[in-house]
Amino acid sequence: MEKDRLTRQIEFALEIDKEKNIFRQTHLSGHGRNENDAEHAWHMAIMAYVLREYANEEVDIARVMLMCLIHDIVEIDAGDTYAYDDEGLKTQKAREDAAKERIFSLLPTDQKEEFIKLFDEFENYETPESKYAHSMDNLQPLILNNSNNGGDWKEHGVTAEKVYGRQSKTREGSEKLYELTDEIIKDNIRKGNLC
Amino acid sequence: MEKDRLTRQIEFALEIDKEKNIFRQTHLSGHGRNENDAEHAWHMAIMAYVLREYANEEVDIARVMLMCLIHDIVEIDAGDTYAYDDEGLKTQKAREDAAKERIFSLLPTDQKEEFIKLFDEFENYETPESKYAHSMDNLQPLILNNSNNGGDWKEHGVTAEKVYGRQSKTREGSEKLYELTDEIIKDNIRKGNLC
Repeated sequence: MEKDRLTRQIEFALEIDKEKNIFRQTHLSGHGRNENDAEHAWHMAIMAYVLREYANEEVDIARVMLMCLIHDIVEIDAGDTYAYDDEGLKTQKAREDAAKERIFSLLPTDQKEEFIKLFDEFENYETPESKYAHSMDNLQPLILNNSNNGGDWKEHGVTAEKVYGRQSKTREGSEKLYELTDEIIKDNIRKGNLC
Repeated sequence: MEKDRLTRQIEFALEIDKEKNIFRQTHLSGHGRNENDAEHAWHMAIMAYVLREYANEEVDIARVMLMCLIHDIVEIDAGDTYAYDDEGLKTQKAREDAAKERIFSLLPTDQKEEFIKLFDEFENYETPESKYAHSMDNLQPLILNNSNNGGDWKEHGVTAEKVYGRQSKTREGSEKLYELTDEIIKDNIRKGNLC
């Protein structure tokens, strides 16, 4: 027998609890512990709302926030791939596609389709909403890492060139926030936190 | 000199990072560690979106989600007050009011006012959005605790009567989700998880 709609929705709600156990390379401010995906997503969603006036194009902020909240759910199965892990990045898409299918299939079909569409929109980086959401995905760990004197970069020997490579995409979502990003990177180079 | 707008917004964004260090009495599914406020808020916001069809009245879901995301920011200063801690509940409002003023004052004035208004709306429990957001504040820990065989209730010796007292408010936001809540509570009484 087909499970009823609410049962499926609650199973999904319980499943995504596991995202709180997926830890990232970024550390909390105050030289804290590693951050997990759920915390990162929460932080991005609020920042997206607070900083929405700087988006290059007008955005549907509710869709941006929801995109921020769900963009890492696939990492429950696929794990976190560090932005500067070249080997991991090669297999990331295949791992995340399988996870996307499994996890969103817990939902009723209409909601599965809606969430996959939103997830793909984020990944495809084409709409104003997804570009702005990606700016948050970049800016949120940057301000934490900056507050910790670049500790995450030092730990992984990340160069300024690499950081600029990733952070240049912030510009597509927000020129203004890219200016801030550029200032933060230059400041960290001056301080010897990035070489 | 007045700090510029973006500087204030980024200071706020960095300050709220501390919410990830405020731990709750609820444990993650799979008999996991205690959950923190940022994770709880993230979880509530997604659940609010997924379950919005069950709200008693039509809601502005973007406002509900934002309300869920920010409703515990005051606990950075005020700490978490457990739902069944009668002593803590007496001083909760004064502690949270002071926190609200300090933390939201980091933002530019227009945003400070907007966030305080939203926070107060949640607390005042009058609009359809705040009632539905409170349903999530109740349902989210309930499904975690249910998945852990009522461990959080057992740890604190919480009775079914107390749980009904708190959870009855879920009904004001969603009759349908209150039916589910009632089933879960009854099931836990049957299993001896609640007395």
